[in-house]
This record gives sequence, structure tokens and C-alpha cells, in this order.
Amino acid sequence: LGLESLGDRRAKAENMFRLMDGFLKNDPVSLQKDIIYHVEYTVARSRFSFDDFEAYQALSHSVRDRLIERWHDTHHYFKKKDPKRLYFLSLEFLMGRSLSNSVINLGIRDQYADALSQLGFEFEVLAEQEGDAALGNGGLARLSACQMDSLATLDYPAWGYGLRYQYGLFRQIIVDGFQHEQPDYWLNFGNPWEIERVQVSYAVKFYGTVEEEVSNGINYKVWIPGETVEAVAYDNPIPGYGTRNAINLRLWAAKPSGQHDLESYTTGDYVSAVVNRQNAETISNVLYPDDRSYQGKELRLKQQYFFVSASVQDIIRRFKDAHDNFDEFSEKVALQINDTHPSLAIAEVMRVLIDEERMGWDKAWDIVCKIFSFTTHTVQPEGLEKIPVDLMCSLLPRHLQIIYDINYKFMEELKKKFGQDYSRHARMSIVEEGAVKSIRMANLSIVCCHKVNGVSRVHFELLKTRVFKDFYDLWPQKFQYKTNGVTQRRWIVVSNPSLCSVISKWLGTEAWVRNIDLLAGLRDYASDADLQQEWRTVKKINKMRLAEYIETLSGVKVSLDAMFDVQIKRIHEYKRQLLNILGIIHRYDCIKNMNESDRRKVVPRVCIIGGKAAPGYEIAKKIIKLCHAVAEKVNNDPDVGDLLKLIFIPDYNVSVAELVIPGSDLSQHLSTAGHEASGTGSMKFLMNGCLLLATADGSTVEIIEEIGADNMFLFGAKVNEVPALRDQGASVRAPLQFVRVVRMVRDGYFGFEDYFESLCDTVEDGKDFYLLGSDFASYLEAQAAADMTFVNQEKWTRMSILSTAASGRFSSDRTIEEYAKQTWEIEPCECPF
Amino acid sequence: LGLESLGDRRAKAENMFRLMDGFLKNDPVSLQKDIIYHVEYTVARSRFSFDDFEAYQALSHSVRDRLIERWHDTHHYFKKKDPKRLYFLSLEFLMGRSLSNSVINLGIRDQYADALSQLGFEFEVLAEQEGDAALGNGGLARLSACQMDSLATLDYPAWGYGLRYQYGLFRQIIVDGFQHEQPDYWLNFGNPWEIERVQVSYAVKFYGTVEEEVSNGINYKVWIPGETVEAVAYDNPIPGYGTRNAINLRLWAAKPSGQHDLESYTTGDYVSAVVNRQNAETISNVLYPDDRSYQGKELRLKQQYFFVSASVQDIIRRFKDAHDNFDEFSEKVALQINDTHPSLAIAEVMRVLIDEERMGWDKAWDIVCKIFSFTTHTVQPEGLEKIPVDLMCSLLPRHLQIIYDINYKFMEELKKKFGQDYSRHARMSIVEEGAVKSIRMANLSIVCCHKVNGVSRVHFELLKTRVFKDFYDLWPQKFQYKTNGVTQRRWIVVSNPSLCSVISKWLGTEAWVRNIDLLAGLRDYASDADLQQEWRTVKKINKMRLAEYIETLSGVKVSLDAMFDVQIKRIHEYKRQLLNILGIIHRYDCIKNMNESDRRKVVPRVCIIGGKAAPGYEIAKKIIKLCHAVAEKVNNDPDVGDLLKLIFIPDYNVSVAELVIPGSDLSQHLSTAGHEASGTGSMKFLMNGCLLLATADGSTVEIIEEIGADNMFLFGAKVNEVPALRDQGASVRAPLQFVRVVRMVRDGYFGFEDYFESLCDTVEDGKDFYLLGSDFASYLEAQAAADMTFVNQEKWTRMSILSTAASGRFSSDRTIEEYAKQTWEIEPCECPF
Ligand SMILES: Cc1ncc(COP(=O)(O)O)c(C=O)c1O
Ligand SMILES: Cc1ncc(COP(=O)(O)O)c(C=O)c1O
Repeated sequence: LGLESLGDRRAKAENMFRLMDGFLKNDPVSLQKDIIYHVEYTVARSRFSFDDFEAYQALSHSVRDRLIERWHDTHHYFKKKDPKRLYFLSLEFLMGRSLSNSVINLGIRDQYADALSQLGFEFEVLAEQEGDAALGNGGLARLSACQMDSLATLDYPAWGYGLRYQYGLFRQIIVDGFQHEQPDYWLNFGNPWEIERVQVSYAVKFYGTVEEEVSNGINYKVWIPGETVEAVAYDNPIPGYGTRNAINLRLWAAKPSGQHDLESYTTGDYVSAVVNRQNAETISNVLYPDDRSYQGKELRLKQQYFFVSASVQDIIRRFKDAHDNFDEFSEKVALQINDTHPSLAIAEVMRVLIDEERMGWDKAWDIVCKIFSFTTHTVQPEGLEKIPVDLMCSLLPRHLQIIYDINYKFMEELKKKFGQDYSRHARMSIVEEGAVKSIRMANLSIVCCHKVNGVSRVHFELLKTRVFKDFYDLWPQKFQYKTNGVTQRRWIVVSNPSLCSVISKWLGTEAWVRNIDLLAGLRDYASDADLQQEWRTVKKINKMRLAEYIETLSGVKVSLDAMFDVQIKRIHEYKRQLLNILGIIHRYDCIKNMNESDRRKVVPRVCIIGGKAAPGYEIAKKIIKLCHAVAEKVNNDPDVGDLLKLIFIPDYNVSVAELVIPGSDLSQHLSTAGHEASGTGSMKFLMNGCLLLATADGSTVEIIEEIGADNMFLFGAKVNEVPALRDQGASVRAPLQFVRVVRMVRDGYFGFEDYFESLCDTVEDGKDFYLLGSDFASYLEAQAAADMTFVNQEKWTRMSILSTAASGRFSSDRTIEEYAKQTWEIEPCECPF
Repeated sequence: LGLESLGDRRAKAENMFRLMDGFLKNDPVSLQKDIIYHVEYTVARSRFSFDDFEAYQALSHSVRDRLIERWHDTHHYFKKKDPKRLYFLSLEFLMGRSLSNSVINLGIRDQYADALSQLGFEFEVLAEQEGDAALGNGGLARLSACQMDSLATLDYPAWGYGLRYQYGLFRQIIVDGFQHEQPDYWLNFGNPWEIERVQVSYAVKFYGTVEEEVSNGINYKVWIPGETVEAVAYDNPIPGYGTRNAINLRLWAAKPSGQHDLESYTTGDYVSAVVNRQNAETISNVLYPDDRSYQGKELRLKQQYFFVSASVQDIIRRFKDAHDNFDEFSEKVALQINDTHPSLAIAEVMRVLIDEERMGWDKAWDIVCKIFSFTTHTVQPEGLEKIPVDLMCSLLPRHLQIIYDINYKFMEELKKKFGQDYSRHARMSIVEEGAVKSIRMANLSIVCCHKVNGVSRVHFELLKTRVFKDFYDLWPQKFQYKTNGVTQRRWIVVSNPSLCSVISKWLGTEAWVRNIDLLAGLRDYASDADLQQEWRTVKKINKMRLAEYIETLSGVKVSLDAMFDVQIKRIHEYKRQLLNILGIIHRYDCIKNMNESDRRKVVPRVCIIGGKAAPGYEIAKKIIKLCHAVAEKVNNDPDVGDLLKLIFIPDYNVSVAELVIPGSDLSQHLSTAGHEASGTGSMKFLMNGCLLLATADGSTVEIIEEIGADNMFLFGAKVNEVPALRDQGASVRAPLQFVRVVRMVRDGYFGFEDYFESLCDTVEDGKDFYLLGSDFASYLEAQAAADMTFVNQEKWTRMSILSTAASGRFSSDRTIEEYAKQTWEIEPCECPF
């Protein structure tokens, strides 16, 4: 090359650019050619035989090509503009499927459908081949996914960071009515939606010791690690809707680090050394299947630090590529911590700035305090994450020192402010003394972040008055809330195309897909007979799809005239699926005791329940079994027929939600008031015109404000009534109907007497922590109101239209706008076409 | 789809075929476009910045596309013709790099070089980016690779089967002259040469129990496994040269099996269950780094069975796709077992036929005896593989039963033939009694295979008279030999393009690349001054490349006028690298003791040694250290200067061989006679016109026949002299020079006295098992003869040309032709263009 003239080289570069010129074309023939190319050369199938799954793979690869174009251009543009970037750190992202979402956001869904049909394939059928990316447990994880969609659509210069679990959330299998768990080998069939970036990789250190080093007369700490693992990036392009922007979700996978060599004295030594090393490098393999807490598990802590360390290295590397020093760091970088799981990032940034960049403590601390913001999803102080000091000391010795230093300075500040109020100091300290000395990750986060966000107004009130009261007293200005939201792209456009067309037709525009406030325009037509008719047809279509699915799953044929009544979410005592089941038993009991003519007046119901129980959560697993036991009885009772069916939908996940939500008439959100921080499932139902039967908890309080209490079915104790009810304990009498249905379960009416005993104990007088007994009467009334309304189809449809019309406030676009302005202080950065 | 008319569907199919029509084009602009496409969409690099490695990846993907076309068409054609297929089972394949080999075999090397240079890239530079696929230890594994190339080139309908080790043969790192091992993470940067076939996967079972089942009054055995692992296929297309055929090398990787579900009582349970399961599924991860034996290691046995079971399932599935019963099985299937490693395949085929296909024993046995053939690479009876019965009983209970049944019938046969000769029965039994009751895999293979092949004539003689004498007496017709060979495509065309052009020019044709016998035509010009001149220029070019490599590696500048004297192969006592080093010490000692004018007469030498020691092979590791210690002394001695340099080339592998062999003048093959079954390294040197300094061992005996003893430098005891020399033991006096050089080492002349003591002990009188002492004088004479000849450049060049001209017999094309006709009975099946 040294011999070539400058002119020669320029000519070659121009040759290259000429070849690269122009983007992939989206006319049907180009799309077909690209699909066929991928059949033969990427999926490597013979050109003469490939099945639907292989066609799906080829199709996805052709979409991936188009995603990559935008993703490249977006990053090139961000690099050029160097705006302040948001880094969204979350240990969980529940992305679900990508194909339909991608082609819709890219604006080429119809072109693809045409191209495929000319080849003899149906887009919908191929889309069904895709498995879910289930790298998260529930609400928190799906929220992260919705927020990524909004960040991309609103053109924010944002990056998501997470872990690429080899096994996603377990698959739920039901055997004889009991939940079993199967590892989710979601990557076994390849994943066209990710881009492996083998060259983007960082060493992550663990264990070892901290030593001192003097340089230019200053003492520095040097961490000598005991183990090193490599983090390799897998990039997942996130396309915005109606924009060229496609941002990046970067997930880290652990790979063996090539930095060590072995000295082996036998072949066996060598083989075991390699095998052992490999085991140490499976850190990122398993997603913890528990949506509560992970107190004190070493592997979990390793996952957290692995993820945090790789992300921080990547963020600092990117900053340093464009800047010579750290002066502008806090003007260019915002780090959002999704719950406390990534909060080690705080200590990690301090460590890198102090030990590696050799910055003074005060300057580093100043930066850290400006860049981090934190959102908490917890309601119960018991749910807050704690890490035993011993564990931290062994795994992350240097981080422990830094946390101690932060805490020391914080305690000094407290003393200045509040004097010798030791019990306050003890409550607020980052270090919890006690039998197991621990680090309180929430306290660390609050001390170091400039904003602490709740996820609904109710949640914010609880934070201020209970969970973080001391901190609110000290720093009221840090506390805010941003009510959660969900993306209408996935939850209407992708999952309910029929509703989407009707909305666009009546609003006269598709602009609501980016500007959700326009949905309010539907209010004007809520009573319009034509819209009502179309609206009902849409619902019927979706109920048909759902009924087919139910029949394939369970063999049960359900009536489309019945009210489809749905509760789908993780199984938890506080979410009170048991209340729902006891209500169903009550309904069954009533029907059994009716005469023929009364039966004719019963509104037929298809009750659908779905959700996973954490593998170690015994009571939740019993609830699942009870649901099956009741269903077994009810569904086979000829007295009941179509009047009542109970269906448990196994393996609830995003793609199941996309099918079930549009097909529901009524949806239930029964958490004991004060226990659900926000809830996002309800918002998806709302968008799809399903009526809500709910307690005034979490975001429901704000939903009521939008839609009005008379357009939904509310029941139960309010947040501020709950403590008193609990204090009354045994003296609150449960209504007779409640006692009766619990007794039926206890007496073995549904079999499995012994097994259900401990379940019944949890709602017995005095032990009924979640207040099923005291809310039961009110619950039945709300159910009766729903029945009565359902008979009046015109009224029901009106309420349904108003639900959709009122859902605008619950778009994650609104949430993200609020975060962008009030918390992250970032501006859109729109990549030109 | 049900609604469509037949006409509609036909129209759609035609539309699809039209889009698929035509192959990828190979003009420079098409190649450039394809490369650039892969830069952006496959490697996912920005169109504006990619480095050499990324360019290599993109380039390789465009080559892969072209390989896939031929590979598809070949298999389509095989399927149509349904010829008898050869299945080549080997636990090791040492493929090395693929890029250059592929484009040369596809006939598009020059087009690619042009296309790249117009883009500002050099083909050679990009090709250097590729890492080796090192899924094997040494000779046996590289032989498999050469044979795959010949099978493809000669159009045989063949499949290779092997294991896809996650970590290939360890990387050798030298630290202070000592060998360290590093795992070879060869897949970390992706592998464009394989095609992941997620849908081609089989369950492989382990452990468990055998139960009985009666069906139609017949007793069957049913194996209830204790563990199941999934085998997933990775296909590696192997293109032939000058043909459209591209055959397949299918490697199996272990993946978690999704067939079980867990019942977990705590989150910790669940997480550990998943992690443990995963560990069980890392079976295929590590290649055993020992080229001797693997006696009694459970993991190794698991690897063997995993590989065998998946391959047998695949072979039977393919047969059944085209046939309704097993009548033609033995006319359609030949199974070649490369050494005893895959010999469990015999028991596995029996098991499948009897237990699963429910065939009678006699019919199954008849099939097995017709389809299997076996090649042994072992010389020493101690080297034969044995598996403890206990281990087999636990891991493969059903296979043990079958092996016992086979042995029972075999013993009955022996009794009929030889009566009560119990010691003969004991020697020949498949089951070895003793402290550790074991299965003798070689005996199993000989009993069940219709052919047992040696790998050289010398080896064949040893098999008949020593290793398998009893079996030869029983079944002389089973025993054959096929002298090993190497492929001239890789070892001349790819690795020595300059020599390749000179050969083609002087022979007036490139046909020798497929028809190696034509090389003999060079004999006519061996003394031609013009050819000699061109020949020397070629050698100079290759020596320059090698000298540059040496300088980069070690900082040592070597003289191009020196004789490049090379010994590269695994480090083994029997291969006698120590003899070479002691010879170098002797040479050094002589130079030190010469006066100036004598020094001026010394022929300058660059001695190059390379090779890996098995991690647990202490003596071999000491030999490596001694080489470094001597080099340290010699290379820094100003008395010596250019007269003698000693270079250890670390991490010897295929791509190092491709660089070193063309640049050598002399190559050494020093195995004690009777210890090298064949040796293939020598053949590669021969093809490249390097003179051989060797013992009359293995295939060297046949090389002598081709080239004549006066065209090489022979020395040392002959095979039939060795036993007597050993018997003489201490009474064979080692020459004085030998005693002197060993003493220098013992006395710490090169440091590390204590460390080298046990090494010196191995060659001391009476313990000198490999006869270094008794061969030393003869070795020095041969070296002196080489020196003398080197001074006469015309004579040397003549011998060099004659070497290449004589190498035809050592092409793997010849080996494969012999196997095809004499052992496998298969015919070429040439896919039309
Ligand atoms: C798969 C999945 N899990 C959990 C949730 C959260 O549901 P909720 O807020 O009702 O608990 C959602 C939201 O739709 C979801 O799709
Ligand atoms: C990497 C490698 N190892 C081992 C061998 C076998 O060499 P030999 O037959 O000299 O032992 C070869 C043959 O060239 C090789 O390329």
C-alpha cells in the first residue's frame, strides 16, 4: 500500500462508495429476491424445499438488513452530532417478538405481505413462527421494552443496556394442573434480531484483592482481580415508528477470557481447567425467575456487576472517543438505573474515575451525582435489595471500600443536618448493621442519584410517606414520579390491526400512532351507531382468534356471546388471583343452585386466567393448581354449560398477551390497594377497549381520572383504608359467601383437600393479609355491575370506546417525554433521510 | 391456501424459481458488490469503516455463498442418484484455514484477488486474518482433512462426521522457554465456514438402565436413559478441485435437550438445575490434547458416544428416507472408522437395528460385518484403547450387553477353530480380564470390520507380525494397507504458489493438480539449468517469507544463505527431537573448538524446531525447554554468528506448516525405526522439494523406493535391527560425542541442571529406549552428508526437483482411490454443471 499514490487510493475508495451507494429497495420484487437470497445462502436451505420456519428466518434476515441500514445511519449521525445521550440500564427487557413490530415501524408491512403472498406465503403465518425474547419476568421488564420503542420513535439519542441471557424466563408447563418449569432455550434456533459484535468486548473482573500504589506522590488503589470474564456485545436494533432513527439495545454475553494461560501437569488437569473456566463463564446464562427479590445470591450479584461493568466501560470508551478529558462528561451522559439492580454502576463509575482515570474524589463524586437517575418499582420496604457485606467483600472488594467511603461522607452530612438522631442515621445508612451486615442498594441509589422516580402518583405518595420518608424529608427535590406507559405501536398497531384501521378511519388519520393524544377524538363518536357496530365487529374477530387458541390448547369450545373475562399477569398473593377464583366458585355455586329460568338470565362468562409463578413460590403454585381443579369441575358440569367456563392459559408471555388482550371484554386488576406500584397490563387492555374491573391501586387511580369511575367497575378498600383494616385483623368479619366458598375448597369439593389447606389458611380470618375476605362483597358487586352492563351492548360498547379514547395518557411516549425533560435533560436527535 | 386453485399455486412456485434462477456471478464487479453487501449486512459494519479482519469476514461470507450453491447441488444430485455412500467417522479433523483453499478449489482465486485489489485490499493480507480450525492433535487429524479434500475432488459420494469442539487444540505459549497452554477459543470471532443446522438435531442418551419388553411374543431390550443431550449439526462444505462437487463435513455440537421439565421448590433449585444441566451439555467442548491415548476417561467416552450416536442416527435417517427396509443397507452404506475412537459405532448400529428396528441378531450382525471398515494408526500394543467395563456399564449399559454378546459368539467361533488354546482366547477376547476389566476397542473393531487397514507397508508388516498377529492368523484376508497421502491442493497449490507456477510451466499443464502422477514428468528436467535457476528462486522467495516470520517472532535475523533445517511435528520421545537438539549441541561444540579458517568452511545452518507437547507429557515439555536453553546460548554467541541459529517456532499448526514447509531446505524425520506408523509431514516436505534426513521408518521406506536412497540422507537402525539393539541394552556403547553432549547438558552448560537431569536419564546407557545413543554416529554422518551436498547447489537442486517429482505416490488422491476400490467399494458420482 505504501507504494500507491494518493490518487490511486482515492480512486479505490470512490469505487467502494459507488458500490455501497443506495439503500435496499422495498418494492415486491426486490423484497422477494432478498428473501429468496436468504433462504439459500443464510438459512442455507435448498432452493427447492423450505418450510414455514425457514421462510420466517429468511424473511427476518431480509428485515434485519433493512434495520441494519438505519441503525448504522442513526449511530453515524449521533456520532457526528454528539448530543447528550441517555443510557438506560436494566437487567430485564421483555421484548417479545420482533418481526411484525419491525416491519410496522419501518413502514413496510404491506409491501412484505404482498411480496410473500405472490410467493405463496402468508405474512401472518410466518410471523407466528417467531419465539418470544423473554429476557425478563414481568411488568418492569416489559416497561423497559415499551420505553425503548418510545425512545426510538421520539428520536432520542438513547442506548439500552442489558444482559443476553442464554435461557430466558422459564417456560411454564402444566402437568395435571401443576406448574412445571422448562428452561427457555430461546437461542437454539438462532436469533436474526441480534447482531453479534465479537470485536466489541470488555474484560470484567471479580474477586481478588486491593493493593496500593504510589504515583507522583499520590496514593492510588489497584484492584488485582482473581477472575476475569469477557463481556461480548450483542446489538439489537430498535427501530422508531415514522422516523429513520433506529437505536440500539446492547446486551452482554459472558465469554471465556483468553487472557490467562494454564500450566497443566496432566491431560486431566488441562481438561478440568478448561471445563471449570467455562463454567465460571456461564454467568449470563440464567435469568432469575423471581420478580420479587434476589437477596444475597452470589450468581445474581455476579450478573449485576458483569452487566454494569461492561456497560460502564462501553459508555466511557464512547465518551473518550470524542473527548480529551472529563469536563463535559455530565453534559453528555445520563445514566438511568431501572430499579436497584444496576445500582453497582454508581460504585463502578466512581472506581473507574478514581482508580483508573486517577481523578480526585470530589471531582468524581460531582460527576456521579450529576449523571445518575433512578426509578424504583418497589412498594414494600421488605422488597428492597440488600447485599451481604461478606459477599460484596469477596466478589467486589474495591467497590465495598468505595461504598463505605460514600456512606462515611453521607453520615457526616447527616450529622451536620440532624445532629445525633442515631435512629435516623441507622435507618438512612447505606450499610445495614445486624445479624447479616448488608449494603442497602436503594439507599446507595438515593444518595447518589439526582432524581428518584416513582412509577405512578399513588406510588409517589407511598414513597414520600412510607418507603423513603427519611430521604424525602432530607431531599424533597430529588423525588418525582412518571406514571408508566405502554407503546401503542405494539399494543394496538401490531396486536390489533382491525382496531387500528377502525381508529384511523374514524380519526381520519394515522397520526395517533405517534401522537397518542389524538385518540381522545374518539370520544365524539362513542355513541355513534356505525362506530359501535364496527367496534363490536372488531371485538368479535379478536374473540374468534382467542376462542380458536383456547380450543387448540385445551379442547374447550367457548361461546363467542359470553363475556371474555381475563386476568393475566404474574401469579402473586397481592395480585389476588385467588379472589378471582373464589369469585368464580361463588358464581358456579349460584348457578348450581338456580332453577332453569334463573339460569336463563345469567350472563355467560368465559373466565381466563394466565400467569407464571416463581419456581419457589409455593402459594402461587397452589393458586395455579386450584384454578385447574375448579376448571376441571366447572367445565365438565352439564348443569353449567356455556354459562361459565374457566380456562387457564399456560406460559403467559408477551405474544400470548398480544393475542388475549384484544379478545377480552373485561379485564381484572385486583391488587390489594397499596401493593401495585403502577401496573401496566391494565393500560394495554384500556387501549384495546376492554373494560376494567379493578381496585383503586397504582396507575388505576390515574385511569379513573381519565375515564371516570362510572366507565369502569371499581371495588375494594382504598390505599388509605388498608392499614386500618389490617389492624382490625380477626375482628373484620368476612361475608358469609366468602366463608362458604373457602369451605368448599377446604372440604375437598375440588379434590386435593390436603394440598389446598395451607392455601385456604392464607385467607382465613386474622391471617388474611391481602384482605380477600373484607373485599369480597364489594368484588361481587362490581362483578354484578359488569354483568348488568354487558347485557346492554350499546352502553358496554360506549364504555369500551371511551376506554380507548382515554388511554392516551398511558402511552410510554408520554412517560418518556417526561423523563427526557424532567430527569435526563436530553433532546431529540433526528437522523435525516 | 385451501382456497387457491392448483393453477395459482403453480404460478407462485414458478415465480419463486424464476427469482432463484441462476448462480452467483464471479466477475469482479459482482464479487465486489457481494463483499460490500456482507460488510454492511452480515458483518454489520458501517459502510464507511471496516478493518482487515472485517473485510476478511465479508470476503469469506461471499465465498461461503458460492460454496453453499455447490454443496446444495451436490447433495441434491446424490439424493437423486442414491449411490453407495461412504461415511468417514473421525474424532479429529485438522482443517486449518479455509479461505485460500476454498477459492482455489472453486477456481476463483484470481477473480477475487482482482476484485479486492480494485477495492484497495490485498487477498493475501486478508487471508492471513483467518485463524486455524484445529479440531485435532496431529498426523491422524490432518490426514482426515487431506482425505476429505481428495474425496471431494475425486467426486466420491462421501460424508465426514466429527465433533465440533468449542475449544480446539490448545494454543502453545512459550514463557521463559517453558510451554504453557491456552484454550483455543477459535469460535469467539465467528466461523463463516460452517452452516449451523439447528433443525438437524438428534437426542443422544446416556446412563440409565436396560429393561425388557415383550412384543408379539418376542423379548426386546429397552434402554431407559438417565440423561439426554441434543446433538446439533454444523455443516462444513468441502469443495473439490476442478469439479462442481462439494461434499459435507458434519460436526456435532452438544446442546441442552428441551425434553425434560424441572420441578423446582426454590428459585435456587431452579437456577442450579439449569446450570447443572448446562454443564452436562458441554460434552463436546474440549478436544483432548493428547495424541497418545485416553484410557478410561468418562468425558472422553461420552464424547465418543455422543459423536457416534448422532452420526449413526443421521446415517440411518438418510437411508430410511429413500428405502422402506434394510435389505439394501449394506449396498448403500460404508462406514469407515478412523482409529478405534469411533468404534462404539459398531455396537450402536447393532443396538439400533436390534432394539429399535427390531431386526433379528443374525440379520443385524450380517449388516454390521458388511458395512464397517477400520484403519489403525497404532504401532504399539500399549497404545490401544481400552474402556473399563465399570465405566461402560454405567454410561452405556445396553452397549456393554451387546459387546458381551458379540464376544460370546466370537469366543465360540475361536473354540471351534483352535480348540482349547486358552491363552490365545484370552489375547483375542474383546474383554480383557485383570485388575481393571476392560473392553479392547481394537479387538471389537477387528472382529466386526470386513477390512483392517494399516497406513504404510512397514506398519502393515508390524500389524501382521506383532500387534495383531493372532487376528492375522485367523483372518488374513481382512488385513490390508493403504499408505497415507497428503493433498497437493493444500500442500503445493495453496501454500506454495510460486512452486505451483513453475511446475505448471515446465509440465505445460495444470492437470497435475488433479492427476499427481504427472509430477514425474519433472524428472526429465532435473538437471536443466533454467529449471534449476527458477527452482532456486522459488526457494529463496519462500525462505524470505519464513525469515521474516522468524524475525517477527523471535527478533533473530537469519541468513538466507544458510541451510534451513526443519523438524516440525508433535514433541515425542520416539520422534527424537532430542536427537536433533543433541546434534545441534554437537555442531555448536565443534564450531566453538574450530579455528577461524575452519569456521569459514562450515555450512551455515538455521535449525528450526516446532511442535506441541501434550500438557501432561513431562519429558516432552523438558525437550522444549532444552531447545530454548540451547537456542539462548547459541544465538547469542558471537563466535558462532550466522553459522548456527536455533529457532523454536511456537504453536505449530497447519497454517504454520504451510509457511514453514515451502521455506525449508532440509527436513528431519527421526523416529526410532518401528515407531512411526506412517508419518505424513515428510510427504509435504517432499512435495515442496525439501530434502529428507530420515530413518527408514513408516512411509519413509516407500519414499526411498520412489526417490532412491542416494537422493536423501538416511541413517540409523532399521526396523528389524531395533529389537536386538534394545536387548543388548547397556552393552551398546554410545559414541564419545554423544556422551560429551549429554554431559554438557547434565553439567548445566545451558543452565537448569536439575530440571534437565531426568531428561538426560532417558537416554543414558541401558535406559535409552529410543536408541539415541546407538543412532548418534550415523545421524551425524547423515548431517555431514547433507552439509557436503548443500555446498554443491546444482546437485542439491537436482535432488530437490527429484523429490517433488517423486512425491506423486504420496498424494491422498492415491490413498483414497485405493480405499474406494479395495475397501469401501464406492464409485464417483459427479454432479453435472
Ligand atoms: C408478559 C407480561 N408480563 C407481565 C406484564 C405486566 O402485567 P401487570 O402490569 O398486569 O402485572 C405484561 C404487560 O402486559 C406482560 O405482557
Ligand atoms: C499441524 C500438523 N501436525 C502434525 C502433522 C503430522 O506431522 P508428522 O507426520 O511429521 O508427525 C502435520 C502434517 O503436516 C501437521 O500439519
